[in-house]
Amino acid sequence: MQTLHVELGDRRYPIFIGSDLNPQELLEPYIKGRQVMIVTNTTVAPLYLDRYVRAVEALGKTVETCILPDGEKYKNIEHLTHIFDALLKVGFNRDCTVLALGGGVIGDMAGFASASFQRGVYFVQVPTTLLSQVDSSVGGKTGINHPLGKNMIGAFQQPQVVLADMSQLKTLPPRELSAGLAEVIKYALLGDIEFLAWLEEHMDGLVAGDEKLLAEAVYKSCAHKARIVANDEKEQGERALLNLGHTFGHAIESYLGYGEWLHGEAVATGMVMATDLSHRMGWVSEADLERTKNIISRAQLPIICPKIPLDDFLGFMSHDKKVLNGQLRLVLMKQLGQAIITKEFDVELMKQAILANQDIV
Amino acid sequence: MQTLHVELGDRRYPIFIGSDLNPQELLEPYIKGRQVMIVTNTTVAPLYLDRYVRAVEALGKTVETCILPDGEKYKNIEHLTHIFDALLKVGFNRDCTVLALGGGVIGDMAGFASASFQRGVYFVQVPTTLLSQVDSSVGGKTGINHPLGKNMIGAFQQPQVVLADMSQLKTLPPRELSAGLAEVIKYALLGDIEFLAWLEEHMDGLVAGDEKLLAEAVYKSCAHKARIVANDEKEQGERALLNLGHTFGHAIESYLGYGEWLHGEAVATGMVMATDLSHRMGWVSEADLERTKNIISRAQLPIICPKIPLDDFLGFMSHDKKVLNGQLRLVLMKQLGQAIITKEFDVELMKQAILANQDIV
Repeated sequence: MQTLHVELGDRRYPIFIGSDLNPQELLEPYIKGRQVMIVTNTTVAPLYLDRYVRAVEALGKTVETCILPDGEKYKNIEHLTHIFDALLKVGFNRDCTVLALGGGVIGDMAGFASASFQRGVYFVQVPTTLLSQVDSSVGGKTGINHPLGKNMIGAFQQPQVVLADMSQLKTLPPRELSAGLAEVIKYALLGDIEFLAWLEEHMDGLVAGDEKLLAEAVYKSCAHKARIVANDEKEQGERALLNLGHTFGHAIESYLGYGEWLHGEAVATGMVMATDLSHRMGWVSEADLERTKNIISRAQLPIICPKIPLDDFLGFMSHDKKVLNGQLRLVLMKQLGQAIITKEFDVELMKQAILANQDIV
Repeated sequence: MQTLHVELGDRRYPIFIGSDLNPQELLEPYIKGRQVMIVTNTTVAPLYLDRYVRAVEALGKTVETCILPDGEKYKNIEHLTHIFDALLKVGFNRDCTVLALGGGVIGDMAGFASASFQRGVYFVQVPTTLLSQVDSSVGGKTGINHPLGKNMIGAFQQPQVVLADMSQLKTLPPRELSAGLAEVIKYALLGDIEFLAWLEEHMDGLVAGDEKLLAEAVYKSCAHKARIVANDEKEQGERALLNLGHTFGHAIESYLGYGEWLHGEAVATGMVMATDLSHRMGWVSEADLERTKNIISRAQLPIICPKIPLDDFLGFMSHDKKVLNGQLRLVLMKQLGQAIITKEFDVELMKQAILANQDIV
């Protein structure tokens, strides 16, 4: 087991990364108060809920559960309300802990619920997908979608502790494992060319679910993100680099309707578009664009998206949170492994980069 | 005009208190970003909305408005959603300001919307009721009600600036002016016996709407609250003193249904119950209990509530946020002008204090 500390002053917290972790032992110092609400979904509950209920009960806590339907399309205000209803029906007070057991959707919703229930209670994360282990474990971003945009309503809420158990990835569908690898690849592309080489060497093992390799990839990704977040918790600057591929990706997800494509899949194609635009801007070589497409393909991820009318695509991009003062800012690459945030790009080339990586039908 | 600074480190902000304030001049340094959403209600809009739209437009900002129905019963997730809808329909981004123009309900809802829209945008408060001028201007508590409890969902969100204009109280119904005086009296009872003497001297002028006296009462109350909040922003300790009368009051409001009684009216009777229990505990003399009832009565506030079955009353009290680890904590008075937070009270005497201050019919 490896331990990574996210350094946020008095909100510093550990991420435990390994296989077959002992939840009772690891959670014990971090569960505050008497009451714990475990929020999970209908897919994860039959697999792992009992394990965590027993672990928390063994700590002498009152445990209640809230089981939501599985999927990004339920990440809305209606299902957020179910969590509040569950907390209030059992009379939980402001001294309780909300434990998220599931993927990014559960983490985002349970996290936002914990941030706003009684104006803030304790939060613990047990991410059960690769995507949420690398992405949601660090950074404190929580929230829900709105029909007019993704993650439009939410809060910054840091957990007390994160348990990232690779043995729980055994039950993850291969498509979701790949979606998680998209975010792993992102860290390499945006700032760590050596990590990209490591991924090129080990991609087959990662796709096959090798737990040791996955733990290493999660550790490296979280360490990368933790460094960036510690410098810029509220996304005033550097943190926006983490959005590589996301502005394009959000447009894809928004157009297709949340849940059609996995978030990681949309980000994967979004990263291709960002790299393609960086290439058209003269910053990234054709060979490096191919190298990017290649590692994404090898992770079993899409490098083109379905045909989306350009006006729709651009409309959804302009609803992205990265828009500042009406000006679209994009995360592009000055060279492979070195991302920048910029408003200085050619809009015509951006349109070309979008169209070049769409299905032509 | 008087200026009071609420000292919260890098979230320090000013409250401007006076009559016929100039909004354009006072808001200018504090409105961030290009876009301003003014949230108000159907009662306030015809009176003051134009004035603030013009002031903000004169600053060169894009101004949009969101007009909610008036009343505590609309302080729910459905109407909160209206604010998000309004923000997204006009394409506002994370660099916008939400300006609350109205009483406590508008301040709480607009404040929570600003805390959670895009995980947090800027917030400006223009409280138009006496209650919100003394209570909501300081402390950053925002939120909405849930069918199972008041203010159960929310956030701590500090404004950039607060404008408390006494001339806007001219249009306030007398019943609401009195409700505001309940919170003013609270500051005297919980910690400032000299302020109580000042109120006894000036209560008739306050009830008559004397703007100079009202400005002085708002300044003293806000200064009192600001001192407490600066020491204890997240209500870990001392800040809970501000809940004098509120646990009893919440039970009254919850039983009657939000909106039947004004919040200040429920708090008024709640303060009588808290003082009555303090008297029964042997801490407050009978004369001081009468003095408390007397100043509350002179403010045209109720000192008894309608008949509420005791079990219901106790049930609603136990849903209050002040319950910690299943133990009810109350704000009581060791002597008049000196409140304490305590679990050490006799439950039988508490029941007597509730029953003694209810309508007998």
